[in-house]
Amino acid sequence: MLTTTQLSPDELAGALREIGAERYHIHHPFHRLLHGGQLGRGQVQAWALNRYCYQSAIPAKDATLLARLPTSELRREWRRRLVDHDGDAPGTGGVARWLKLAQGVGLDAEYVQSGAGLLPATRFAVEAYVAFVRDRSILEAVASSLTEMFSPGIIAERVSGMLANYDWITPDTLAYFTPRLTQAPRDSDFALAYVQEHARTPEQQQAVLAALRFKCDVLWAQLDALHHAYVSPGLPPPGAFVPTPRKPGA
Amino acid sequence: MLTTTQLSPDELAGALREIGAERYHIHHPFHRLLHGGQLGRGQVQAWALNRYCYQSAIPAKDATLLARLPTSELRREWRRRLVDHDGDAPGTGGVARWLKLAQGVGLDAEYVQSGAGLLPATRFAVEAYVAFVRDRSILEAVASSLTEMFSPGIIAERVSGMLANYDWITPDTLAYFTPRLTQAPRDSDFALAYVQEHARTPEQQQAVLAALRFKCDVLWAQLDALHHAYVSPGLPPPGAFVPTPRKPGA
Repeated sequence: MLTTTQLSPDELAGALREIGAERYHIHHPFHRLLHGGQLGRGQVQAWALNRYCYQSAIPAKDATLLARLPTSELRREWRRRLVDHDGDAPGTGGVARWLKLAQGVGLDAEYVQSGAGLLPATRFAVEAYVAFVRDRSILEAVASSLTEMFSPGIIAERVSGMLANYDWITPDTLAYFTPRLTQAPRDSDFALAYVQEHARTPEQQQAVLAALRFKCDVLWAQLDALHHAYVSPGLPPPGAFVPTPRKPGA
Repeated sequence: MLTTTQLSPDELAGALREIGAERYHIHHPFHRLLHGGQLGRGQVQAWALNRYCYQSAIPAKDATLLARLPTSELRREWRRRLVDHDGDAPGTGGVARWLKLAQGVGLDAEYVQSGAGLLPATRFAVEAYVAFVRDRSILEAVASSLTEMFSPGIIAERVSGMLANYDWITPDTLAYFTPRLTQAPRDSDFALAYVQEHARTPEQQQAVLAALRFKCDVLWAQLDALHHAYVSPGLPPPGAFVPTPRKPGA
C-alpha cells in the first residue's frame, strides 16, 4: 500500500495487517513443508538450529531498543520482553525454551549455542534486524516488532501441524510456543498503539509500514536460506550443518 | 585448517589459498550456470542487479576501514581502492562500470540505483561485510579483502564464458572486469603482505583465516539467494525483482 495521505489509526492498523497478509513468513513454502509433516528430521533440526540464532538475538535487539527509550514507562514496558526471553532463573525464558526445542529434535545444546553450522544468511539477517533497531528511529524500531501481530496464527498452525505430523515431536518439545500465545499479543497491542499514536505524518506512517516490510524480509530470508540449503536444491553452504541422512518422516 | 601452532608467512598464505579453494564462490552452482550459458536473460539481470548492491557498497566498506587506519602510508594505499571504485569523474570507476554492465543486460539505471527489487538477503550480506570492517580488528578487516587473491581466476572464467555463451552480451558490457585483473592482484598483494606481517600469534593468524572464511560466506550467501529466487525453486521473495518471461538464452 503506497500512499502519501494521512491514515487514521484504524487505517494504519489495516495497512499493517495487509503487509502481514502478503509478506509474513507463514506463506513461505518451507513453513508449509514444516507444518505439513513433509520434512525429515534433519531438515527440522536445521530449522531449529538456525532459528535459535534468531531467538537468542532477540534480547540483544530488545536491549538495544531499551537503551534508546526516553522514559521509565516505556523502558518498563519493553523490559518485559527481556524477562520473557531471558527468564528469571537459569533454564527459564524463551531462549532456554528454544534450546530445549532444539534438543528435543535431537541436537546437542552446546553445538546449538556455539553457532557452528549456522547458515551465514541466518546470521546476516539477524544482524540486520539488530542494526535496524539500533540505527533507525524509535518509531521504526518499535514498528519492526509488529510481526508479533501475526504470530499467534503461525504458532497455532505450527504446533498442531507438527504434533500431528511428526511422531518424534512431543508437546514438551514445543513448550516454547505456549507462553508466546499470550506474550506476543500483549506486546504487539502495545507496539501497535504506540505507532498509531506516534506516526502522525504520512511520512512517519510510511516509515512504519516500511519497517514492518523490512521485518517480514528478515524472517522470509531466513526461510529462503533454509529452503535452498536443505530442501531444494539442498546445498548447504561450506561449513554449514549437514543433517545425518535419515529417511523423510523418520 | 584448524591449528593453534604458529604458521610461517608462506604457510599462512597457503592456508588462505586453501580456504579459497574450498569456499570461494567460483564453486557455487549459480556461477557455473552463469558462466556456462545456462541462464536466461532475466536470471543474468537478477545477478547484475543484486551484485550492484555489493559493488556500490565497496567504497563504503573501504572508507570505513580507511577511517580506522593509523598512518598516512596505510591510508594512501587503501585510498587507491576508493579511486578504483568511485573513479575521478562522473561515469568512471568500478561502480559506474557495474551500472553499465547492468544496463548492458537490459536493466534501467535508475531502477538499479534505487535498490528496489533487491533480494533482502543481498542487502543483509552486504551490510554484514561493512559491519565486519567497522567492528573487527584492522587486521581482520584487511584480511576480509583477501578474496581478491582469487578473483582473477573467476573473472577470466566469467568473461570468456559469458562472451562465448550469450550472444546478447558484448565485451563493452563486461568492461567492468578488465581493470580488475590488475587492480585486484595489486590490492591483494598488499593485503596479503600486511596480514603476513601483522598476524604474529596463532590467535591472530586464526582470526585472519576466519575473516577470509567470513568473506567467502558473504559472497556465497548472495549466490544462494539468487539461486533460490531465480533458479531453483525460483521463488523471488515478496517485493523482489521478477524477470520478464523470455525463453532461456534469449
